[in-house]
Amino acid sequence: MKPIKVALLGCGTVGTQVVRLLDEQADDLAARAGAPIELTGIAVRRPDRHRDVPKDLLTADAAGLVASDVDVVVEVIGGIEPVRTLLLDALRAGKSVVSANKALLAESSGELFAAADESGADLYFEAAVAGAIPLLRPLRESLAGDRITRVMGIVNGTTNYILSAMDETGANYSETLEEASRLGYAEADPTADVDGYDAASKAAILASIAFHTRVTANDVYREGISAVTSADIVAARTLGRTIKLLAICERVGDSVAVRVHPAMIPRSHPLASVGGAFNAVFVEAEAAGQLMFYGQGAGGAPTASAVLGDLVAVARNRVHSGRGPRESAYAALEVRPIGQVRTRYHLSLDVADRAGVLASVAAVFAEHDVSIAAVRQEGRTADASLVIVTHAAPDAALKSTVDKVAGLPAVREVVSVMRVEGEES
Amino acid sequence: MKPIKVALLGCGTVGTQVVRLLDEQADDLAARAGAPIELTGIAVRRPDRHRDVPKDLLTADAAGLVASDVDVVVEVIGGIEPVRTLLLDALRAGKSVVSANKALLAESSGELFAAADESGADLYFEAAVAGAIPLLRPLRESLAGDRITRVMGIVNGTTNYILSAMDETGANYSETLEEASRLGYAEADPTADVDGYDAASKAAILASIAFHTRVTANDVYREGISAVTSADIVAARTLGRTIKLLAICERVGDSVAVRVHPAMIPRSHPLASVGGAFNAVFVEAEAAGQLMFYGQGAGGAPTASAVLGDLVAVARNRVHSGRGPRESAYAALEVRPIGQVRTRYHLSLDVADRAGVLASVAAVFAEHDVSIAAVRQEGRTADASLVIVTHAAPDAALKSTVDKVAGLPAVREVVSVMRVEGEES
Repeated sequence: MKPIKVALLGCGTVGTQVVRLLDEQADDLAARAGAPIELTGIAVRRPDRHRDVPKDLLTADAAGLVASDVDVVVEVIGGIEPVRTLLLDALRAGKSVVSANKALLAESSGELFAAADESGADLYFEAAVAGAIPLLRPLRESLAGDRITRVMGIVNGTTNYILSAMDETGANYSETLEEASRLGYAEADPTADVDGYDAASKAAILASIAFHTRVTANDVYREGISAVTSADIVAARTLGRTIKLLAICERVGDSVAVRVHPAMIPRSHPLASVGGAFNAVFVEAEAAGQLMFYGQGAGGAPTASAVLGDLVAVARNRVHSGRGPRESAYAALEVRPIGQVRTRYHLSLDVADRAGVLASVAAVFAEHDVSIAAVRQEGRTADASLVIVTHAAPDAALKSTVDKVAGLPAVREVVSVMRVEGEES
Repeated sequence: MKPIKVALLGCGTVGTQVVRLLDEQADDLAARAGAPIELTGIAVRRPDRHRDVPKDLLTADAAGLVASDVDVVVEVIGGIEPVRTLLLDALRAGKSVVSANKALLAESSGELFAAADESGADLYFEAAVAGAIPLLRPLRESLAGDRITRVMGIVNGTTNYILSAMDETGANYSETLEEASRLGYAEADPTADVDGYDAASKAAILASIAFHTRVTANDVYREGISAVTSADIVAARTLGRTIKLLAICERVGDSVAVRVHPAMIPRSHPLASVGGAFNAVFVEAEAAGQLMFYGQGAGGAPTASAVLGDLVAVARNRVHSGRGPRESAYAALEVRPIGQVRTRYHLSLDVADRAGVLASVAAVFAEHDVSIAAVRQEGRTADASLVIVTHAAPDAALKSTVDKVAGLPAVREVVSVMRVEGEES
C-alpha cells in the first residue's frame, strides 16, 4: 500500500509528541488509515536546536517542504503568518491540512476552506479547540441532525488555573499570575490567555461549527480576567458561586451571540468543579438536551492525540478517495452585539446605612427596565453592603444601570460587578 | 438535487421523534446532507394504531419497505429477529443502515459489517450506546490516532435511577424497583436493565470500537443490581463511596476485559454525581489522558438526535460517493475471563468480637495472595464489624478469599461484598 506522506510544520511541545506517536503507533495508525503514514520532513526555525527528533527529517525551509511531494501538511506552529500562506499553498496544491492553529482558524477559516474546496483537499482542526477533547467532530457530525442552541465552556487552561488558585488561596490577581508564570502555567507574555484572546478564537470556531455560520475572532465580545478582584471571588463565594472565564455561544433567533468573559456560576454546576488546566464544554441542543465534554485542554500529548485523530481521518480519505466535511456556513447568521445580549448581573455595593438606600438603587434598576431577582442587605453600621442579582436583561441596560447606580450619593463604592451564568434566568 | 429516500422501521418513542425532526428540520438537514432527506415509508406492526405520523407512510410490510426504492433504512425496532434479516437484506442490496439496536449490534455487528462491506453500504449506530451522547464517533474517529486503555461508564438509566433512589431514600431494592416501575423509569419486565443485559450489549459495542477488536455480548462478564442491598449502600456511604452499575472495558496487554457489575466509587468521582436517567462515560487514552462524555442516555428526542446525526452522515456519503467507517477489528484481541481480571474488593463482615479475628481473616487473604489496602474494626460489643478494602488482585483469588472468609468460625455474616472502582489501586 502506497504510504501517505506527511510534512510537519513546527516541532515544539505538540510537534515532538506527534513525531513520537507517529513512530510508536505506526502499525496501529497504518491499520486504521488503510496505509502507512510516513513523516517525510519537519520544518523548524532552527534545525540544529532539535535533538529529540530524527535529524535527517529537519529542515528550515517550510515552503520547500510544503511544495515537496507530500499528501498532508500538519501544522503546529501557531500564529497567522507565515502559516496562513503556507497552508493556503498546501491546500491549493491539493494537499490536505491538519492544523492546531486556533488564531488562524478563527480568522481565516473561510479562506482556507475555499482553497480546500477548489482543490478537493481536506481541512481538519480538532486540536485547535480544547486540546484532546473531541468537540468539533461531535458538534459537526454527531449533532448534524439536531439544532444546537448553546455552547458554554471553559476553554483556556491558564485562566482557569489562575481563577481556581485565587478561589483557593484568596490571593489577588497579580500575585496569582506571577505564581502561575513561575510554575509554567502562564506564558512569559500571558496576554493571549488572560485577556481572553485565546478563548475568543476558540469561541469563534465553536460558534461557526455549532451554528453553521461564519464567526471570526473579531465578532467575539471579549473581557479577560485581569479585572477580577479578590472581592469578586469573595462575593461569589458568599453566594455559593465561583468565577470562571467562560466562552459562550448562543443562538438567538436568526442571530448568534458569542462572548468571552468571567462569570459567576453556582458551585453545584458541573463546570464549577473543572479545576486547573482542564477544559470542559457544555452543549445544549433541542433534541439531545444537555451534553458535556471534559478533558485535558492543552499539553503536548493530549493535543497530539487530537492532531493524530485528524491525520488518520485525512489519510483514510486519501486511501478511499473520500472527502472530509467542508465549511458549513449556509445559515449565515448575524452576530448580535453584546449590548443586545441578554445576561444576568451580580452587583455588590458599599452603601451608606440609611433608610431609603435600597429604594433609590431599585429605582435606577426599574428606570432601565432591569428586573431584580434577589437582594441582600448586610450590616447595620457605617459599612453596609447591598448585593443584587438581576434577572436576564440586555447587557446595555445592565451597564447603564450599574453606571448610574455608581453615581448615587448613597453608594460609596461598587465593589463587584460580574455576569451570572449557569442558572435559570 | 435528487432526494435521499429513507425507510423507517419502527415508530415508538424514538421513531415518532425521528419523524417529527425530519419534518421540522427538513431545510437544515438538506443543507447539511447536501440533498433533501425524504421519508418514504414507516413500517410498524399495526398501522392503525399510529395517529401521530402521516397515515399514508405507514405499512405493516417491513420487508416490502426495505425492498422498495430507498437509499437508507433507519431501524428503531430493537431485538434480534426479524430485524437482523431485514437489515442484512438492506445492506446486501446496497442500502445504508442507521440502527439504534444495541442487542443486535452487540451480537451481529461482524455479520452486518460484512454485508455492508460487500455492497459498499454504510452501517452507523451511534444511538445504540448512551442515547444522545456522541461516543462511538469520538472513540472511532477522534481517538483514531491514540491508544485507548480504558472505558468506564454509566450506560443504563433504569439501574442508575434505582441505585440513586436507594442511596437517597435508604429503601431496599425491591421497593425501589416497584416505585421505578410505577413512575415509568423501569419497564414492566425490567430484566434487560436490572440484570445488566442492556449494559452488557453497550459494553460489547464500546469495547469493539475502542480496542479495534470484536467483542460480543456473550463475552461480557455480567452482574446486575438485584443483589445490591441497603446494607451495601450503607457500607458504601460509610466509606465516602456510592454504588453505580458500571460498564468497564479494559485493554490488558494483548487482551481485553469487558464487564458489567455494580461497584463502589468515591463520592468525589465525576461518575458519582451522575444521577437519575443520565449517562456518562469516562475514557482513558495514552496520549489524550482522561476524557468524559455526559448526557441523556435514553428517551425519544435524545436518541432521535443521535439517529439523525448518523442519517445526515449516511446521506452525505451518498451525495458525495463517500463511505463511512467500516468494521475495525484488526487487533483481534483475546477476551480475558473475569477470574483473571484484576479488581479491588470491599468486604464488610459481622464478626465475633474477640482477639485474633483480624489475624485469622488476614491469614486467609495472605494465603490467596490478596493484599489488604485498609481495614477498619468497629464495635466492642457482641456486634463487631470488620471492613476490608483490598488492593487489586485477580477476581478469582478475591472470590476464593471471600468464600473462605465466610466459613471462618469467627465470621458471623458476610454483610456486603462489592468491587471498588475509580481509585488508584
